[in-house]
Formats: sequence, C-alpha cells, structure tokens
Amino acid sequence: MKLQSLADLFQHELQDIYDAEYRIARALEKSAKHITDPKLKKAAEAHLEETETQIERLEQIFESTGITRKRKVCKGIQGILEEAEEVLASDSTPEALDAAMIAGMQRVEHYEIAAYGCAISYAKMLGEKDAEKLLKKTRDEEEKTDKKLTKLAEQGINEKALISDDQHMQVAM
Amino acid sequence: MKLQSLADLFQHELQDIYDAEYRIARALEKSAKHITDPKLKKAAEAHLEETETQIERLEQIFESTGITRKRKVCKGIQGILEEAEEVLASDSTPEALDAAMIAGMQRVEHYEIAAYGCAISYAKMLGEKDAEKLLKKTRDEEEKTDKKLTKLAEQGINEKALISDDQHMQVAM
Repeated sequence: MKLQSLADLFQHELQDIYDAEYRIARALEKSAKHITDPKLKKAAEAHLEETETQIERLEQIFESTGITRKRKVCKGIQGILEEAEEVLASDSTPEALDAAMIAGMQRVEHYEIAAYGCAISYAKMLGEKDAEKLLKKTRDEEEKTDKKLTKLAEQGINEKALISDDQHMQVAM
Repeated sequence: MKLQSLADLFQHELQDIYDAEYRIARALEKSAKHITDPKLKKAAEAHLEETETQIERLEQIFESTGITRKRKVCKGIQGILEEAEEVLASDSTPEALDAAMIAGMQRVEHYEIAAYGCAISYAKMLGEKDAEKLLKKTRDEEEKTDKKLTKLAEQGINEKALISDDQHMQVAM
C-alpha cells in the first residue's frame, strides 16, 4: 500500500468504506431476518435502504474525483461482522438476540462515523467540495441511526431482555 | 456462546472490551514509536496510560460483579488493528503516516464508545451502579480522546500531509 500524500489517504479511505458498505448491506439483510422486535426490524430494514444509497453516493464520488472505484478489503468491518455472526450462532433467546444485534449494529455505525469523519476532513483539505457534501450526508445518517438504536435499546429492548431473564429464572426456580 | 439474558450480554460485553483494551494498549505502544508529530506522539502516549487505567477499572468491575475476569477474543478490534498494521507496513511518508495513524486510532475510539455505551446501558438496567460509574468514566475518556484526535488532524496534521504532497509533486516535476 502506498501512503505518501493526503490524496493517497483519501483514496484508501474511500475504497475501505466502499467495501465496508457492501459487507454491511449483506449483514443487515441477514440480521433483519433474525430480529424479533418489530421496531428494530423496521430500523434495520430502513438502514439497509440507506446503505444502498450510501453505496451510490460513494460511486458518485469515485466518478467525480477520478479515484478508481475499487473495494479494498475492510478488515475492521470484517471483524465487527464476524462478532455479529457469533451472536447469530449463539444459544440465545429472541429478546437477548435483539439486544445483542443492537450492540453489533452500533459498532458498525461507529466504525463508519470514524471513517466518514476522516474522509470528510481529507475531502475538505483537498478542495473536493461535492465529495465533502455527499460524505457529510452519509455521516449524518450514520449518527442518526446510532442514536435511534440507543433509543430502541433504552426504551424497551434491553428491558425486554431483562424481563425475559427474570422469567427464565422463575422457570428455573 | 450463551446469550439468554441481559446478564449474559453484560458479561459478554465486559469480556470483549477487556480483551480489546489489552490489544489496544499493545498497539498504542507500537504506534507511538512510529509517530513523528510531537503532539500526536504525546497524545498516543497519554492514551496508553489511560488505557492501562481502563483495564484496571474493568478488573474492579469483574471483582465487584462476580463476573469471571476473562479475555474473549475481540474480533472487531483485532480487525481494526490489522488495518493499522497495514498502514505501518505501507510505503509511506512520515506526514501521511501520522494522518493515517489518527484515522486508525479514531476507529479504535469509536469501537470503544459503542461497546462501553452498550455496557453502560446493561449495567444501569441490572442495577450495577458502581460498574455503571466506572464504565462511564472510561467512555468519557474515549470520547475526549476522539475529539482530541480530530483537533490534531484538522489543526495541523492533515495539512502537513497535504503540504508534503505538494513538495513531492514539485520534486517529481
């Protein structure tokens, strides 16, 4: 890998996120099928649609900047999604699985907030105004999704996992 | 893996972050040696010290909650740190390497912000007040570190990478 300029960093960052978004879309599609809570399922499906738009935005940026449209394996997201796979394969209750799905999705969102944040700084510095605008749109969506997930966790889903916990204990007693 | 209750999720989250913090400490130690910018080097070294305290806090939580102190391989951080390794191994200029180090460190911070955020919610729901307080302390430190890194990037380091870019172009012309 060649990292000798801010332009190299910008290219590297875009190709990394481009790969990440594809992996995230596939994972969201799979996860949504395993979610029980209707609000969370809807949020995952809505974010899948958003992710598809985010991929298109990156393609627009590749086009306008002349940077090669290419997926560079994003090991960070690969690792985070492997954790989510472990959760899906675990011996879980539907309530605990929903709560764990949120924890996984929030890791994904935060990876993206960090990555897009850097890409925005590079675009700004390089005078790539259109790219900067598009990247900011996506970053804002990721931040909104993260906040929505916190709300869903704290206004019901974690509690459901806790109550199911009590019920299991009562059954065991 | 067993995920049948919020208590299981809390345990899983703590053991995941515990492993993550150890890996991050080792990576910070290594990265600090490759950083050129003195302010960034200082920030990495300061965060290494903080990370050691954060590990101790997790050990206090294992002690107070009775949860087994154990490192569960954190694949998310493993992936993010593999990316940082690629950066260290790249054909880079010192200025671009510093800027890329920030991008890597911010991915680490954001992973932690997400993970601690979930752990805080679980601790709260489970009535683990001491744990909740300690986890919040760490989460606040991670958020501060992330903001400090953005400031360092935007108030000098990205520009240095850009200027070094121009200089390389002039040499090539």
